[in-house]
Amino acid sequence: MSVGEGGARPEPRGFASDNRSGVLPEVMEAIIDANSGHAGSYGEDFWTERFGELVREHFGDAAAGFPVFNGTGANVLAIDALTRPYEAVICARGAHIDIDECGAPERYAGVKVLTVETEHGKLAPGDLDAWEPRRGDPHFPQPRLVSVANATEVGTVYTAGELRALADRAHELGMLLHVDGARLANAAASLGVGLGELTTAVAVDALSLGATKNGAMIGEAVVFTDAAAVEGFEFVRKQGMQLGSKMRFLSAQFEPLLGTDLWRRTAAAANEKAARLGAAVEELDGVELVHPVEANGVFARLPREAIERLMGELPGEHPFYVWDEDAEVVRWMCSWDTTDEDVETLVDALRASL
Amino acid sequence: MSVGEGGARPEPRGFASDNRSGVLPEVMEAIIDANSGHAGSYGEDFWTERFGELVREHFGDAAAGFPVFNGTGANVLAIDALTRPYEAVICARGAHIDIDECGAPERYAGVKVLTVETEHGKLAPGDLDAWEPRRGDPHFPQPRLVSVANATEVGTVYTAGELRALADRAHELGMLLHVDGARLANAAASLGVGLGELTTAVAVDALSLGATKNGAMIGEAVVFTDAAAVEGFEFVRKQGMQLGSKMRFLSAQFEPLLGTDLWRRTAAAANEKAARLGAAVEELDGVELVHPVEANGVFARLPREAIERLMGELPGEHPFYVWDEDAEVVRWMCSWDTTDEDVETLVDALRASL
Amino acid sequence: MSVGEGGARPEPRGFASDNRSGVLPEVMEAIIDANSGHAGSYGEDFWTERFGELVREHFGDAAAGFPVFNGTGANVLAIDALTRPYEAVICARGAHIDIDECGAPERYAGVKVLTVETEHGKLAPGDLDAWEPRRGDPHFPQPRLVSVANATEVGTVYTAGELRALADRAHELGMLLHVDGARLANAAASLGVGLGELTTAVAVDALSLGATKNGAMIGEAVVFTDAAAVEGFEFVRKQGMQLGSKMRFLSAQFEPLLGTDLWRRTAAAANEKAARLGAAVEELDGVELVHPVEANGVFARLPREAIERLMGELPGEHPFYVWDEDAEVVRWMCSWDTTDEDVETLVDALRASL
Amino acid sequence: MSVGEGGARPEPRGFASDNRSGVLPEVMEAIIDANSGHAGSYGEDFWTERFGELVREHFGDAAAGFPVFNGTGANVLAIDALTRPYEAVICARGAHIDIDECGAPERYAGVKVLTVETEHGKLAPGDLDAWEPRRGDPHFPQPRLVSVANATEVGTVYTAGELRALADRAHELGMLLHVDGARLANAAASLGVGLGELTTAVAVDALSLGATKNGAMIGEAVVFTDAAAVEGFEFVRKQGMQLGSKMRFLSAQFEPLLGTDLWRRTAAAANEKAARLGAAVEELDGVELVHPVEANGVFARLPREAIERLMGELPGEHPFYVWDEDAEVVRWMCSWDTTDEDVETLVDALRASL
Repeated sequence: MSVGEGGARPEPRGFASDNRSGVLPEVMEAIIDANSGHAGSYGEDFWTERFGELVREHFGDAAAGFPVFNGTGANVLAIDALTRPYEAVICARGAHIDIDECGAPERYAGVKVLTVETEHGKLAPGDLDAWEPRRGDPHFPQPRLVSVANATEVGTVYTAGELRALADRAHELGMLLHVDGARLANAAASLGVGLGELTTAVAVDALSLGATKNGAMIGEAVVFTDAAAVEGFEFVRKQGMQLGSKMRFLSAQFEPLLGTDLWRRTAAAANEKAARLGAAVEELDGVELVHPVEANGVFARLPREAIERLMGELPGEHPFYVWDEDAEVVRWMCSWDTTDEDVETLVDALRASL
Repeated sequence: MSVGEGGARPEPRGFASDNRSGVLPEVMEAIIDANSGHAGSYGEDFWTERFGELVREHFGDAAAGFPVFNGTGANVLAIDALTRPYEAVICARGAHIDIDECGAPERYAGVKVLTVETEHGKLAPGDLDAWEPRRGDPHFPQPRLVSVANATEVGTVYTAGELRALADRAHELGMLLHVDGARLANAAASLGVGLGELTTAVAVDALSLGATKNGAMIGEAVVFTDAAAVEGFEFVRKQGMQLGSKMRFLSAQFEPLLGTDLWRRTAAAANEKAARLGAAVEELDGVELVHPVEANGVFARLPREAIERLMGELPGEHPFYVWDEDAEVVRWMCSWDTTDEDVETLVDALRASL
Repeated sequence: MSVGEGGARPEPRGFASDNRSGVLPEVMEAIIDANSGHAGSYGEDFWTERFGELVREHFGDAAAGFPVFNGTGANVLAIDALTRPYEAVICARGAHIDIDECGAPERYAGVKVLTVETEHGKLAPGDLDAWEPRRGDPHFPQPRLVSVANATEVGTVYTAGELRALADRAHELGMLLHVDGARLANAAASLGVGLGELTTAVAVDALSLGATKNGAMIGEAVVFTDAAAVEGFEFVRKQGMQLGSKMRFLSAQFEPLLGTDLWRRTAAAANEKAARLGAAVEELDGVELVHPVEANGVFARLPREAIERLMGELPGEHPFYVWDEDAEVVRWMCSWDTTDEDVETLVDALRASL
Repeated sequence: MSVGEGGARPEPRGFASDNRSGVLPEVMEAIIDANSGHAGSYGEDFWTERFGELVREHFGDAAAGFPVFNGTGANVLAIDALTRPYEAVICARGAHIDIDECGAPERYAGVKVLTVETEHGKLAPGDLDAWEPRRGDPHFPQPRLVSVANATEVGTVYTAGELRALADRAHELGMLLHVDGARLANAAASLGVGLGELTTAVAVDALSLGATKNGAMIGEAVVFTDAAAVEGFEFVRKQGMQLGSKMRFLSAQFEPLLGTDLWRRTAAAANEKAARLGAAVEELDGVELVHPVEANGVFARLPREAIERLMGELPGEHPFYVWDEDAEVVRWMCSWDTTDEDVETLVDALRASL
């Protein structure tokens, strides 16, 4: 048992994940500002009320949002609230809820996670029909929820139209649509639309609203676009170990992000660096983009030896992740604080390693 | 479904809970200081390594600590790590894990929570034998873990000797001892001992190490005093939705608290105000302390009409909680920022309401 | 790890439990009769269809019944179907679901089991209000289901009127009423009423319909009195590991029991022996009935040494159970095959041991 | 909500499933014979002790067996006993535990079910390595158990050598090997080996020992080949709702099956009919066997129109199952009571439908 292998302080900048950067100055200011005297706990406070307003502004008057601690919590509790344990969730193979939550959806909500092979991490409406032959069969968990990440785990983006088509098909089949929005800001910034346009406006039922990767410190939220359709989520959150006592500090972080266009500027900056990186990569021989660069991640295939050389050349222990060892695919994530110099450093090292 | 009924900003100060106060300046400074560039995520960072050192300093070289988000998470995951689902946890009736976690221990760890009636919230070694007649009976969940809160939920404190006796009896019966240390600092400050003297030194196996009520923002930790005896807690934490990505901000809060005697000064200050309040109350006719005032909470019985008058007289919506409506018992919690003036205001109002 | 300590074949007759007797000849005949050629599996068969008819005859046209394997399965799956994991079940302290299911309700349904102290194992309507002060409080599991055993675990019986009052109060508080009917036949026989009069007619929502203790071999059933109000129980049963493949052999056992008055005659016979035993006991000095003898169990207090002498004097390893060691209370259960001679043997030995 | 669509009594014979046939006369005799007077409940009886002996005879002196009610129960409780919830089970895609338990493994044991694409339903040792790159990564459930069905769900059989290779690789990787032996008798009969030769002798750790499809009425068993390595299974079984009260009737069914070579004769008879059917099918144009016929099932591809014609021509509502609608594959299962005439009827109808 070990934690915290630790390292230098700060560590070298890199492209390992968009959760390795720190907190936006505006978010830190909001946290400091919230530290004024007493406040009601468990969400009975000014900042959480204000968060509720922001949710309604972005997601519509029927929406309600519930701050939670992290993305796993947001995803799993949304699933738990919207399914019964004998039901199933459909997602893309390799989705975060499939392979990066340590089986939390299965354990906590009791559901089966059914996966679809995809080319670029995106489900199509026709994919939802795969298990319909077993609708009504008590031996098989009944598909009830479709969950898509937007932006996806491989840096692609669902358009509003694509989501609408998914939502419509899901609803026709008696299912609901959930969006894992750990990078919803990146998707919306990429498309030049609002957060609501990618969710409420296209009949999404629930979302995990990301904040950490958008420059916050700790916290995400579960948002139901039609809150009246969901019962008892306060209890789900508490029993799910995701009810913060000094909630004002979770809620306050959303004020600068959602109360201004900071969410968009931050995400757009990260997207822009990824686009720049992707463009540079495309010009290099021996490297190949394996997915369109539509948000803040770049996925590329390069020879194993080049990967190793590149890994050694860049500073830090984990300058980036090898996404798929067998396929020789790497992932480079850009963050809100990625600079042009960071990108140039990577491209130079990449050129040298090829 | 509603969240965030909100209110004034800041709200009037009161005695409703020690989680209504804000963050200690030193903790806020540590958070701000941790916001420097990139850091490894999920605990692979400088601050979490440092947290590990602090845990070993306080709890011994064999100890390991794991930051989590909140007290429910700490308690439930400690239980989950130390039991199998067909086992049971013994605690005092009215313990936080019994009545204030929305059934999370039962749901998540699968265990049964077995309760003992107590006078002042404290178990005695003999209480652990109650279910021994059913040891080995497959129809009954097997007691495996004893969980005590220190300080207790009613403001009393277990001494090191009392804990040692509990640990010994638990171990004799094949059980382990867990301390819910949401207010461990208050207990240790009250007794004038160190944190390790109330845990590792008296054979406690695991604890939930509180921080929020000791002046932190968000975060507690699970500590195992003999980490080698516990397998796989990294997985337990992740599957349990309690693994923070930007963990440095959880870990950094422990530096000022545990790296200096801030934990003690903060807790002692709260205890001192409670003692002052308790002493004042004792001199009033018509009010009666129902538990010894040993930490930062005062529990008193007063006539129903006086409760109502007092509630109306004090500012804010929830100036304090009625702990037991039928028994006419109220709870007044002191926090790190409670002032002598706060106490006087309460005592004056109390006097007027009697 | 050990099973099957085994013993003589057959074992000496005794009063340890009403599940130590065998299978009624009529039930065995029905099983043999069902063994004719092929039949649809998982309930798509003649006998299960017929079981459905019998359920409607006894419990009304709106009722539906689902054969399961055992009482734990019936109770836990009924709870699972009628609650969400953040809800709670209210029962008498010492109820089977409280202390004899190895924590299965908590683990499987995720619920909290809230208990009420009772004199004779029976809840009163006023008991249901105990947790109402915490209705709506997300920190506390919300009471949703009241579960009573009829006959109770201590051999007492709820009348139709008592159940109606419980059901009414439960419904007023937004709760449902479940009857653990492992010994429903004994209760109905005791009162001289039908099974429906103790359930559907008094607004009971669901029941575990016992068969094993009524002379069947393996199998109980979950019955919903208003099946339209419950969704997806086929899935609950399958996921709950209680869907039998050759279900005809479960279902067929109900035909002789429910299709004639065999259920009543069998239960009445057991009740009659218990009454006889109770009457004999009452005349003995040094023994005291601790609960009214209303069904097929007799609970008596006698000196510890007498218990030991009696235990030694009767044949077999477990001629009866010590129900409460500290209180010196024993349980004597009568079964469908208990004879007058069995009762006399026990009374004689008891007389000798006093 | 509906149960028991029912039908004629008996139904027409068919090839839908090997659980549509009845109970072997020898098994019925054993059940009747066990109905003699009183017996200890919950496994404290003569027949369960005898079952334990039979388990040791077949699976070795270190083995222990635990009767449970059905295959889902056996599989899920074996998984639950051998894993922690953050671990994972590896199986073939389409395995019963993957797609025919309504998600019970995930819900009850909390585990993730990881699947491997196979040609004929069989895992190879190399398949177990697929998730090793994530060994130790807390974001991913850790593979701990390999589960194979033998015979497989598509009628193929693992040889002793193949199982040994799987067990060895599993153990090298820190995993255990479980065999879903719903049709273990068919596999052993097919290979001409004993039950232990396919399990204990090749280092299998646990198995679900099938009985129902081998001619029993209700009941399977969980067998651990090294019982000392497994703790607390009595509790696992009880909490898992699979502890029968009149257990003698579960245990007694194993006496004729395992105490003689009835298990083998029964399975061999079914296998022989399947072989005959497979051979006849191979000679027909327009039908293609999609898997080798190694046990009691035949899987064939034929034109959609032929499937429909065949379905209409045979008696009964479900004369057989369409296994894969898109691939035009059907399943024909032979049972212990399948006759040559049954096979001829099917072949004739098949010939006519092509």
